[in-house]
Amino acid sequence: MLLIKNIGILQTPIGKSSLCGEAQAQNLKLRNASVLIEDGKISAINKDGELPDLSRFGNVKTVDAQNRLVTPGLVDCHTHMVFGGWRHGEIPLKLRGATYLDILRAGGGILDTVRHTREMSEDDLYCKSEGFVREMLAGGVTTVESKSGYGLDLADELKQLRVNKRLNEHTPMDVVSTFLGAHAIPPEYKDRADEYIDYLCDEVLPEVTKHDLAEFCDVFCEDSVFDVAQSKKMLIEAQKRGLRSKIHADEIEAIGGAVLAGEIGAVSAEHLIATNESGMDSMAKGGVTAALLPATSFYLGKDYAKARRMIEKGIPVAIASDFNPGSCPSLNLQFAINLGYLKYHMLPEEILTATTLNAACALDRGQTKGSIEVGKDADLVIWDAPDFEMICYRFGSNQVKTVIKKGEILQWN
Amino acid sequence: MLLIKNIGILQTPIGKSSLCGEAQAQNLKLRNASVLIEDGKISAINKDGELPDLSRFGNVKTVDAQNRLVTPGLVDCHTHMVFGGWRHGEIPLKLRGATYLDILRAGGGILDTVRHTREMSEDDLYCKSEGFVREMLAGGVTTVESKSGYGLDLADELKQLRVNKRLNEHTPMDVVSTFLGAHAIPPEYKDRADEYIDYLCDEVLPEVTKHDLAEFCDVFCEDSVFDVAQSKKMLIEAQKRGLRSKIHADEIEAIGGAVLAGEIGAVSAEHLIATNESGMDSMAKGGVTAALLPATSFYLGKDYAKARRMIEKGIPVAIASDFNPGSCPSLNLQFAINLGYLKYHMLPEEILTATTLNAACALDRGQTKGSIEVGKDADLVIWDAPDFEMICYRFGSNQVKTVIKKGEILQWN
Repeated sequence: MLLIKNIGILQTPIGKSSLCGEAQAQNLKLRNASVLIEDGKISAINKDGELPDLSRFGNVKTVDAQNRLVTPGLVDCHTHMVFGGWRHGEIPLKLRGATYLDILRAGGGILDTVRHTREMSEDDLYCKSEGFVREMLAGGVTTVESKSGYGLDLADELKQLRVNKRLNEHTPMDVVSTFLGAHAIPPEYKDRADEYIDYLCDEVLPEVTKHDLAEFCDVFCEDSVFDVAQSKKMLIEAQKRGLRSKIHADEIEAIGGAVLAGEIGAVSAEHLIATNESGMDSMAKGGVTAALLPATSFYLGKDYAKARRMIEKGIPVAIASDFNPGSCPSLNLQFAINLGYLKYHMLPEEILTATTLNAACALDRGQTKGSIEVGKDADLVIWDAPDFEMICYRFGSNQVKTVIKKGEILQWN
Repeated sequence: MLLIKNIGILQTPIGKSSLCGEAQAQNLKLRNASVLIEDGKISAINKDGELPDLSRFGNVKTVDAQNRLVTPGLVDCHTHMVFGGWRHGEIPLKLRGATYLDILRAGGGILDTVRHTREMSEDDLYCKSEGFVREMLAGGVTTVESKSGYGLDLADELKQLRVNKRLNEHTPMDVVSTFLGAHAIPPEYKDRADEYIDYLCDEVLPEVTKHDLAEFCDVFCEDSVFDVAQSKKMLIEAQKRGLRSKIHADEIEAIGGAVLAGEIGAVSAEHLIATNESGMDSMAKGGVTAALLPATSFYLGKDYAKARRMIEKGIPVAIASDFNPGSCPSLNLQFAINLGYLKYHMLPEEILTATTLNAACALDRGQTKGSIEVGKDADLVIWDAPDFEMICYRFGSNQVKTVIKKGEILQWN
């Protein structure tokens, strides 16, 4: 039993399914509000200084929000946070003009991360990623997706996925697990992508589902990685085994990943820097959420996805961190929020929806997460800010004051 | 008496004056090092596992750096951190396409900050900026410059400068005070910039120096603000009263600010996004440090200053945050370090020099700050990282483990 009172502005999207078009900008804003929490769920919401009737309860713990902003806990719907090593050693090479392929040929790039991830024990991977989870929680993220994809063989993919499961069970964070065996072609299958997909479908996927280690299957559909046919095969096989689909689509070239996403009913397509009109049309038709990753564009110095155009076309837009050691060594979702404003030119309300309800729906959590509504999980952030405009505007500072996770106070700065 | 032992890498520039050209990239790197601190100053530096002879001392407090990176404390040589209000209210206007001038005409922009700064009491300004100072310290900054320039009249400029003085005296931070009365033309002097400069020189400056409230004088030399003649007059008058010169130069257009900086022996020219070859030549000849502000380019979506060209031409380059509520609402110097790598393409060693010794020299602190050398102030950062490449590469996380300020342990995460 917890009462959060004196909320200056309570701001939240509303609903259990993702919001698109004009609805993405429609946030509920209540002034001088309070939220009552019972058994980890929101049981009452009041506004205009009214408080719930507490006479039927004994001790009620109270948090005074001191006129601050309260939003739903943030949801980071795209990360690769379980990995060995880092890739800071590539800096001198990059500054001397080495390309991605130069680095890959020298044994660097993603294969460097695969090597380090394979070498690390499950316990060491757990400890490392648990540190990230704690920092994400302190930054206002209460639900996070975590993809495998640095193992690229049976034992090491399962190892990554077991870390996801342990993180979900042993930290306050809700960790949603995605199987991304088709993240890259491992050295053992060099130039044999088809055979690697067969291996994943025949030998790895059955073990993943047998041990209930993932809810989603993702694939890196990109030129020189997995083509549309390979991606489709992987995702359809996974659907048959009960894993819903996500796709790394059109990050570098629009080879058809976004189109495929719509065709096979993927929950989300992710990256989408190069997506064209036909890709967007397919996504809109298929109800696919666009998971956009602006911090990756920032880090790589690339273009930014056409978020405004997607919103115009009725695609629900989510924003995520893409935390990974290669193309986005940042787990800071607040910074992705800043980029949503500065680079995507999204409205603050659209950005809040993108990092709460739409992200929750991209993880099949729309029923329980992503908004402040009676009956939903009490995952909330009290911000050290008067409004969400401030969260979009100030950058480089953690503006979280307090995180409430399923009704428990996690942090008090 | 404090011993820092088990330093994995001790990395520092060397010297008491700013480093330019190839020297900017020459950092001393000692492995398995230790630093002994007496009376707030560095008294011994050892490497290769050797430790100083401690037999002549009684109790020596020891910090185990656990094989981490240690650098000099960071120096942020350009901020406007004492201000009233914020400017997040401009977001909806900006998203609707309002220009800087549109906002200024509507009473927003810098004049909004001036209004709020004038309205705030000295004590309230102190409390607000003290919070920033604490956050900067936690981020590894041990010396910071703070400019006035949101008062724009006698009482309120002195008020801002007194806050600087109090911050310097009552927090662990070294706060270096700069008088920037010529930051904008106040409403009272609309279209009368010459008269405003006369007012500053005749009525404000004498009070600033009489009460010893600043070490530097700065001026915003820019089209539609103060021209070269006005800027020169202000800075020369200040030099006569003992204030060394800084110039906001060539941020938007190269109207001659960088040239002036070289001619009048300014310590630094700042911003420099639009600086041309003649400006750089004058700076190189005059030994002027370039204080570059990449987070402002990031926030405004502008070009980045030509840092590599400046280094080639022998100009010492410093990097600073430019923290201010209008064009850079971020006090995060680590993020400016990331941008030094990502956008200026500077080497990690050059960036360390830019945020330690060169920045210290831009504040006339080269004798005591900015490097780890025997006799200098013991301002140090122990990083939660193995090398400075990691600080350049990871972004969005505070990578500081511990800050040592004049030999005192300020923070232990």
